[in-house]
Amino acid sequence: MTIKDIAKLCGVSVSTVSRVLNNRPDVSEEIRKKVLSVIESSNYIPNNCARDLVKTKSDAIGLVVRGVSNPFYTDIIRAVEKRIDEAGFTMVMQQIGVCDDEIKCGAIMEREKRLQGIVLLGGRSDYTAAELALLTVPFVCCSYSNQYGTLNPTEYSSVSIADEEEAFRAVTELYQKGHRRIAALISRTDDHSISELRYRGYERALRTCGIELDSSLVIATGSFRIQDAYESMQKRLGETDDFTAVFAIADNMAIGAMRALREHGRSVPGDCSVIAIDGLEISNYIDPILTTLCQPMEEMGTRSVEILVDMIEGRSGHRHEVLTTTLRPGASVKSIV
Amino acid sequence: MTIKDIAKLCGVSVSTVSRVLNNRPDVSEEIRKKVLSVIESSNYIPNNCARDLVKTKSDAIGLVVRGVSNPFYTDIIRAVEKRIDEAGFTMVMQQIGVCDDEIKCGAIMEREKRLQGIVLLGGRSDYTAAELALLTVPFVCCSYSNQYGTLNPTEYSSVSIADEEEAFRAVTELYQKGHRRIAALISRTDDHSISELRYRGYERALRTCGIELDSSLVIATGSFRIQDAYESMQKRLGETDDFTAVFAIADNMAIGAMRALREHGRSVPGDCSVIAIDGLEISNYIDPILTTLCQPMEEMGTRSVEILVDMIEGRSGHRHEVLTTTLRPGASVKSIV
Repeated sequence: MTIKDIAKLCGVSVSTVSRVLNNRPDVSEEIRKKVLSVIESSNYIPNNCARDLVKTKSDAIGLVVRGVSNPFYTDIIRAVEKRIDEAGFTMVMQQIGVCDDEIKCGAIMEREKRLQGIVLLGGRSDYTAAELALLTVPFVCCSYSNQYGTLNPTEYSSVSIADEEEAFRAVTELYQKGHRRIAALISRTDDHSISELRYRGYERALRTCGIELDSSLVIATGSFRIQDAYESMQKRLGETDDFTAVFAIADNMAIGAMRALREHGRSVPGDCSVIAIDGLEISNYIDPILTTLCQPMEEMGTRSVEILVDMIEGRSGHRHEVLTTTLRPGASVKSIV
Repeated sequence: MTIKDIAKLCGVSVSTVSRVLNNRPDVSEEIRKKVLSVIESSNYIPNNCARDLVKTKSDAIGLVVRGVSNPFYTDIIRAVEKRIDEAGFTMVMQQIGVCDDEIKCGAIMEREKRLQGIVLLGGRSDYTAAELALLTVPFVCCSYSNQYGTLNPTEYSSVSIADEEEAFRAVTELYQKGHRRIAALISRTDDHSISELRYRGYERALRTCGIELDSSLVIATGSFRIQDAYESMQKRLGETDDFTAVFAIADNMAIGAMRALREHGRSVPGDCSVIAIDGLEISNYIDPILTTLCQPMEEMGTRSVEILVDMIEGRSGHRHEVLTTTLRPGASVKSIV
């Protein structure tokens, strides 16, 4: 029994049957009922995807993007959309502010758009099981994981980098070039976000290298915004400039800080080295070219969708993938040994 | 007769009536029919918006973004979403490649999501009436207009800057600083996009200033990508570097070109001035800070939605708004007079 047989039995075209399976509005209620009853009484087994659709779902996968202006997301979004298309679904995207709740947003979208699954791009790392009960479809945390939450790893999926480990690596890179007074440019030390994770990596790297943590070298800007990074570094340099290197948790923040350093007469990397994590395209064109650990953005988006579709189509359960960054040596780090 | 009366007559809550008016799926067919029949037999007049919704439309406004990786769009998207929210609608966004057809995409979305209206962010400037007949809901061209098309201005709406005029202004700015050998960094001269429009402004400025057009100074990269701008400028400088200034049609392209200039030992602005159009936030942090004409991105997004909602709610017909840029003087232009 194929879709063609169903169409013949109902006296409608194949595309009409397809429209019914896809829950399209442009089919009369009468035809819809007829097609569904024939399908139910026949031996026709739609593929997983189509079978789900019959159960009132659309063919949509939701993408909730938290923090729209994050340039780091652009390539991920593109990869997510491409892979969703290739998998035969359509993408419905919603952007929310950094202070909004991605789970609530996802839950509303899930009901309103009858989603099959959700990719959460950016979000908190401290979910509880109770919160996540709001979501009844499979979902994947893209670019972050649940380090500070109480979720059982078998209850959710994620694709991310090892934020703490990568920060450790960046700071160690500076240490190996002879730097001992290393400032950290972060958002906050305790926000349960990648800022806290990367700050931990900074702390651990210092400890491992036998350097005592100097809290006056921790510059917490309170956000990931370029302007806040610039202003915080301005303020810091107005007080003291007793460091030879800066580890910035994001490219954008590094670029903001570099302007402040210049304005205080400190050349990069002559007077101060700068390293970051992200790997934005534009960082590769500025002067000096930023030395940064590049996240595999395309792979991150693609793998998130692949894991999600595997879950939607019943091929596998929850999974966690940790991807690695690639050091892109620019010209913003100088060896002082 | 108010929504409360309707609720009382039906024996349901106000929010249930609201859900019916908003065509939400979480209402039983029985309740839906009851509420709609009471509304029909009563004197209750939903406002324009709600009345439309009863007629099978959702509360969604579509946003079709052409060229997702364009950083210039980020602030516009945020403003569009904010204004759509404030107006009581929800945004459904679709991103398409620079080679995709925004009208076809909009037409499909319109049917699938039962849109009330569409904002097209980025698109071709040469539509024909036949093409646009695909769209049956109001729409606004955001950030571009229809200079090369055959549309009657009363048949569509737009919010844009005067691209040719702004390019004219940028090139004139260079002329007034003493520059006579001015290169243009564009995508193409004949693509019916803002590239062609801004190229025309460059041509007209030269003509007005009495400078003969030298086609060897027109660097057409074939795209708006930063890497293509970098490579095209590299190639050009490998041949000859007989210009003292560059007008780039976009900030990103200017940033790509500036790296090529540096690598050829030409300092900006010492040996070569650079001016652009866009006003990305990041251009204000790089070294040297880019001198650029800032587009009013937030206003562009906000006004597009306002015009669209006015049309949806029957308050006005098609309109065209031309916004102006603001010169943000950076440090990339040097006077040589």
